[in-house]
Amino acid sequence: MSNNGQTPKESLNLMGWTCPAPLRNYPTVVLGHGSGGKMTHDLIEHLFAPILQNELLDQFGDSTQFALSQPGRIAMSTDSFVINPLFFPGGNIGELAINGTVNDIAMSGAQPRFLSAGFILEEGLPMEDLGRIVTSFGEAAQAAGVQIIAADTKVVNKGHGDGLYINTTGIGVVPEGVNIAADRAQPGDVIIVSGTMADHGIAIMSVREGLTFESVIKSDSAPLNGMVQAILGVTPNVHCLRDATRGGLAAVLNELASASQVGMQFDETAVPVDPAVHSACEMLGLDPFYVANEGKLVAVVPPEHADAVLAAIRQSPYGANAAIIGQVVNDHPGMVVARTRIGAQRIVDLPAGELLPRIC
Amino acid sequence: MSNNGQTPKESLNLMGWTCPAPLRNYPTVVLGHGSGGKMTHDLIEHLFAPILQNELLDQFGDSTQFALSQPGRIAMSTDSFVINPLFFPGGNIGELAINGTVNDIAMSGAQPRFLSAGFILEEGLPMEDLGRIVTSFGEAAQAAGVQIIAADTKVVNKGHGDGLYINTTGIGVVPEGVNIAADRAQPGDVIIVSGTMADHGIAIMSVREGLTFESVIKSDSAPLNGMVQAILGVTPNVHCLRDATRGGLAAVLNELASASQVGMQFDETAVPVDPAVHSACEMLGLDPFYVANEGKLVAVVPPEHADAVLAAIRQSPYGANAAIIGQVVNDHPGMVVARTRIGAQRIVDLPAGELLPRIC
Repeated sequence: MSNNGQTPKESLNLMGWTCPAPLRNYPTVVLGHGSGGKMTHDLIEHLFAPILQNELLDQFGDSTQFALSQPGRIAMSTDSFVINPLFFPGGNIGELAINGTVNDIAMSGAQPRFLSAGFILEEGLPMEDLGRIVTSFGEAAQAAGVQIIAADTKVVNKGHGDGLYINTTGIGVVPEGVNIAADRAQPGDVIIVSGTMADHGIAIMSVREGLTFESVIKSDSAPLNGMVQAILGVTPNVHCLRDATRGGLAAVLNELASASQVGMQFDETAVPVDPAVHSACEMLGLDPFYVANEGKLVAVVPPEHADAVLAAIRQSPYGANAAIIGQVVNDHPGMVVARTRIGAQRIVDLPAGELLPRIC
Repeated sequence: MSNNGQTPKESLNLMGWTCPAPLRNYPTVVLGHGSGGKMTHDLIEHLFAPILQNELLDQFGDSTQFALSQPGRIAMSTDSFVINPLFFPGGNIGELAINGTVNDIAMSGAQPRFLSAGFILEEGLPMEDLGRIVTSFGEAAQAAGVQIIAADTKVVNKGHGDGLYINTTGIGVVPEGVNIAADRAQPGDVIIVSGTMADHGIAIMSVREGLTFESVIKSDSAPLNGMVQAILGVTPNVHCLRDATRGGLAAVLNELASASQVGMQFDETAVPVDPAVHSACEMLGLDPFYVANEGKLVAVVPPEHADAVLAAIRQSPYGANAAIIGQVVNDHPGMVVARTRIGAQRIVDLPAGELLPRIC
C-alpha cells in the first residue's frame, strides 16, 4: 500500500551481500579502515569499488573531473542522513541517502546526474551491514539514473556514531525554459500531491516504538526524478515543486504560501492517506499532514494544465494515487487553510518544534 | 614557523562570536534544532545565515541554482571532517573543512568556486563552540574565495557524535589546456614540496597526547588555490599536484609513482621540516614524511619549468619554504627511494596501517 499500489519496489535492504575474502578478517569496521593507509585501500577496493565503480569514480584523484553536455543552470543540493534505525520497513539509510538528494535536485526541474558520497562509519559497525547498505546505495543510484563520482570514508571511535552517517551532494542541469521556485505560486493555481501522505514517518516510528499494526507500514522512499520529467513533458510552466519530507505536507504548503505571499486552501478528504497509516496516526495522536514522506511531491500548477499534470503523475512510477487537493487563493496570504471532513475550516500552521527526530 | 615564516595566518579559532538573543535560551544544541520545524529555522536564521549568507545560499529551495560562466571540465570533490579535538593549535574543524575541500579541487588546476556544507551536530554541543566554528568556517570560505551555496543541518543524540562532523563538497572549473593527473609524472620531472612537512599531524598529536614542546606546534591548515594559480601562471604544463594530507609525503609520492609507473627519488636533507616538528617526531618515533599536512602540496613539473615554478610557489601565500626535493626516474617503477643524511638509500613505502586516526 505504501508504494501507491504500483509495481512493488524491490525491497533493497533484503538484498544479499557476500563479504569478499580480503575483508573476512574484519567482521566489523575498525579505526584502521579510516587511516588512509592499506586498510582503507582494502575497504575501498573490495567493498565500495565493486558496487559503485564507474569510469568517473575510477579517476582516483583528489577530485573527479567531468563535462556537463547539456546547457542550462546547475542545481546543487546537499543532505546528511542520520536516520535511526539504519534498516526499516521499505528501505534503509543507503537507499534513502540516494533518493533524498535525487529528489531535492529533481524539485528544481533538473535531471539529477552526479552525486558525491561521504560515509562516516562507526568502529564496530558489522561489515555485513555496511555491505548491504552500500549495495542498496548503489542499486538506488542505478535506479535513479545517477552516478556516484566522488566518495570519502572516515571512521570514528565506537560510541561516537550510530553505525553510519551518509552525506550525499548532487548536481544536475535545469533545462532552459524551466523556472520552478517557491515564490511562483499564483492565485488560481491548482495543488496536487503525488500519493499517500505520512508513510515514511509512521514506518520509522512504528519500528522505533515497537508498534505493530494489522499490516506492515512501509516507508515510501523512492526517486521522483522520473515523475518530474513526466510533469515537465506536459508543460515547462510548472510553478512550484517540493518533496514533502520533514514537516510533511503542512510544512511544504506553509513554505510555499509564505514565499509566494498567497493563501493556500485544501480539502482534508481529498488528501490520500493509506488506511493503515490513518489508523496508526489516530492511535498515536499524530496529524498525517505533519508526518514526513520520502517519495511524495507537491506540485503547484496553472489550472489549465492541472488535469494533464495529474494524469502524467498517475502514469509515472510512484504516482498512482496522485490527487488534486486544493488551490492557491488571494485570501489570507502566507496562510494555509484546510476544509475539514465536517465542512469547517481550520488553519494548518507550520510545525512548531520537535515532531519525530532523525527520520532522515 | 608552521606557517612557513610568512605573514602569520589569523588564528581563526580565537575569533569571538556573540550568541544572538533568540538563541540564548539554548546554551547547547538540542534535538529540536534538527527537527525541521521552528527551532531549526531559528538556528539557521540566527546562527548560520548571518555568517554564511550570500545571494545563492539565500534561494531557500531544495537545491541551489547557479551558472558556471567559465568553459571547461568541472572538478568535484567531497570530504567529511571528523577531527578530534574540534579546536587545535592553528585552527579548528570549521576552517579545516573549507581548506581540505578547496585544496582537493585546486589540485586538479581548477579554481574552487562553490561548496556545500553538511553539519551533523551532537545534542549538547555548546552553542558557543558552534558559533565559533561556523564563524571560522565562513571566514575560511571568504579567504579562499569560495561561496557556500547549499547547507544542511542534522542533530544526533548525545553520545552519538563528537560535538560535530562536517561534510564539504565542492566544485570548480578546470581551465582549458590544463591536464594535471596522477599518471602524468615522467622521468626527468622535478619534485617540489611547498613547505615544511608534518606540522598538522604533530600539532594534533601534541594536543591529544598532552605533549608540550619548547614552542607551540601549529597546524599548517591553509587554502592552496592561490598557490596553484601562481604555478599555472608559470606554465599550464604541470604534470602532477597533490596536497600531502593523510599518509603525508610518503603516501603522495607512492601514489604518483604507482599511477605513472615511474620511480621517484628524493633527498631527505632537502625536505623542509620545522626544527620543533623534527624534535617532536624524534621523540615520538615518527617519520615526518608519513605525517599529515593540511596546507602543503607536492608538484611534479618538467625540468625546464622547475626553477620558475619554485620561485612562483615561494612568492605565493603559504609557500615561502618551498624546495626542490628530488626527481622522477626511469629506475624502480612504482617505487620511492630516499637518499639519507649519510648518503645511503632507503625505500619509502606506502604507510601500512594505523598511523594517527582522525587527523581530519
